[in-house]
Amino acid sequence: MNRERLQRAQERMRERNIDAYLVLTHDDYLYFFGQVRVQPRAIVPAAGPPILVVFRGEEAEVREDLGADDVRIFGSVAHMMKDVVGVMRELAQGKSALTVGVQMGFFTPAFLLDLFQRNNPQVKVVDIGPVMDELRIVKEPEEVERIRRAGELAAIGMRAALKALAPGVTEREVAAEAEYAMRKAGGDGTATPVYVNSGLRSGWLHGAATGKAIGAGEPVVIDLVPVAQGYCANLCRTVVVGAATDQHERMMGTYEAARQAVLQAMRPGATMRELDMAAKAVFDKAGLGEFYVMGISHGIGLAFEEIPAPTIKPAEAKVAVREGMVLTVGHSVLSIPGVGGVRLEDTYHISPSGPVPLTSFPVGLSLAI
Amino acid sequence: MNRERLQRAQERMRERNIDAYLVLTHDDYLYFFGQVRVQPRAIVPAAGPPILVVFRGEEAEVREDLGADDVRIFGSVAHMMKDVVGVMRELAQGKSALTVGVQMGFFTPAFLLDLFQRNNPQVKVVDIGPVMDELRIVKEPEEVERIRRAGELAAIGMRAALKALAPGVTEREVAAEAEYAMRKAGGDGTATPVYVNSGLRSGWLHGAATGKAIGAGEPVVIDLVPVAQGYCANLCRTVVVGAATDQHERMMGTYEAARQAVLQAMRPGATMRELDMAAKAVFDKAGLGEFYVMGISHGIGLAFEEIPAPTIKPAEAKVAVREGMVLTVGHSVLSIPGVGGVRLEDTYHISPSGPVPLTSFPVGLSLAI
Repeated sequence: MNRERLQRAQERMRERNIDAYLVLTHDDYLYFFGQVRVQPRAIVPAAGPPILVVFRGEEAEVREDLGADDVRIFGSVAHMMKDVVGVMRELAQGKSALTVGVQMGFFTPAFLLDLFQRNNPQVKVVDIGPVMDELRIVKEPEEVERIRRAGELAAIGMRAALKALAPGVTEREVAAEAEYAMRKAGGDGTATPVYVNSGLRSGWLHGAATGKAIGAGEPVVIDLVPVAQGYCANLCRTVVVGAATDQHERMMGTYEAARQAVLQAMRPGATMRELDMAAKAVFDKAGLGEFYVMGISHGIGLAFEEIPAPTIKPAEAKVAVREGMVLTVGHSVLSIPGVGGVRLEDTYHISPSGPVPLTSFPVGLSLAI
Repeated sequence: MNRERLQRAQERMRERNIDAYLVLTHDDYLYFFGQVRVQPRAIVPAAGPPILVVFRGEEAEVREDLGADDVRIFGSVAHMMKDVVGVMRELAQGKSALTVGVQMGFFTPAFLLDLFQRNNPQVKVVDIGPVMDELRIVKEPEEVERIRRAGELAAIGMRAALKALAPGVTEREVAAEAEYAMRKAGGDGTATPVYVNSGLRSGWLHGAATGKAIGAGEPVVIDLVPVAQGYCANLCRTVVVGAATDQHERMMGTYEAARQAVLQAMRPGATMRELDMAAKAVFDKAGLGEFYVMGISHGIGLAFEEIPAPTIKPAEAKVAVREGMVLTVGHSVLSIPGVGGVRLEDTYHISPSGPVPLTSFPVGLSLAI
């Protein structure tokens, strides 16, 4: 359990008059308690020890790991929501209404929030983003090391994927080899499905790895987000099995030039929007601007996309780069209908001397040959 | 695109005065449109053709697959929410308010629903469950075949997992072998992480496969939910690496007896609650009732847990078994603190002559030897 992080969160909650944070997602649970849980449920009050709701069979282990004095544990599952309601009543003593924060990201199920709200009509639910974003946006050294480790796994997966690539091999088989290699190297699976998109499907935004056989001369986009000790890194490459056309080479060259422009611009104070415009300028100059989807960069860490993540939350385009952030470059696709797409993505730590790569892999359409 | 399913959904929407269904989850998208999409976005109005929101790079392919006359396609991503709002305004013409249904399951992100509601203040959001549940609760023969295929993958994965099991091997390595074998056999990944829980962790409700080394004599719970053409099957086994204790044998024997009691009770008209009580009676008689977590069975298909799913939605304990349903038996854990847990789960189709297994694998603690 990380007391310092809990205290910082509690301070920010008090400043914002948030009485409690209802943790329902694995990322913040891991951030505070250091444990991976499939069904994370905890309540962090604005002051005092956190309350964990775990299954009885897990109680002894959790108690031993976290220290009995610091947490209250409810070993129940059937009455989980009832327990949560009970805690809310307790916290509300002497108050007419309780303000409870929750994460509003991809992994907060709508039904759970709905159930909570119906069971706690006296509670005002607010977004906990303003509390947690400020804590998580800048990574501690230990977090950067975990992301770097995930980056190493990504390179292992990419090598396995490229080794498997050949005309006639299916997208799914390539994904299988990447997944397996990353798992065998100690990875905890991937935070998104492994994307292997070939031919015209390389121009999709995100497409699953299907049973489609990869044809000679087709571009193939391979996108990997392995997880190491809870933390993600993102590595994406586009290759051609066989000979690339001039058009593919031109798309690839332009994409890489756009990435270099973004890395040049990636200095403290630059906004995410400005990074995107730096990429756009390169594509515009090459006459490819209309085929570029905005959203070149996003934060990454405990979640595969986290603050700043302008393609999920448009307002975060205004967030400025800061030292200590971890950002990807190359998130968005250059997609030409009838031709296909190109993407190259790497993960960087913003150091005092500029972006330092946490993923490392050669770039080039002919890597698969 | 499945016109018949769309029409049935539209009829039920009209009966319930729901003007449109905003599809945000992959399961219903696949159910209607036959396509796997990472970011499924569609609107099914109560009458007339459905509207799909896809990325421009995907538009041609989607249009070709589905037929341009039957669908309206918005090839935009930056303006996706704006497009959805536009459609809502169109549908609302001449109405003071619009009632829009959404799924309230695990995979509807709270923030998306929040964003939609804020952009459409005139819209009343309701649960689409009553429309879709009735369609999806009984499986068509083609759906049963896909689940059977997923069941075959599960057996392949379980064999690979058992082959990998040995003292000193990590939970993660066992999971890697299961995943890889299922992928190589044509699977589309798994709907839940592969759970491999050993020692005291076998008594957890769901625990990730960690770097923990499996010890000799420890119980190991292996739970697999592979996906084949969008459909899931669930297979879980508990084994011991080495010699099982009498207590493990007793837990195992009782669990299997409870499953047989549930299969006997699994006849049209029996409620999910009654199935659970049939299991509970066996555990009670063996003096293990206090260690049994309620929730022996759930529906499965496009989602790893779907109607009836009493452990997610308690009200669905009242749902009665019907011919044509696909249900698992063995979802809940028999978990003794300090000892560990036992689970055995299989997937069944309710045929006129009773439950027919769609997964098939031997049962026994010594399978790993």
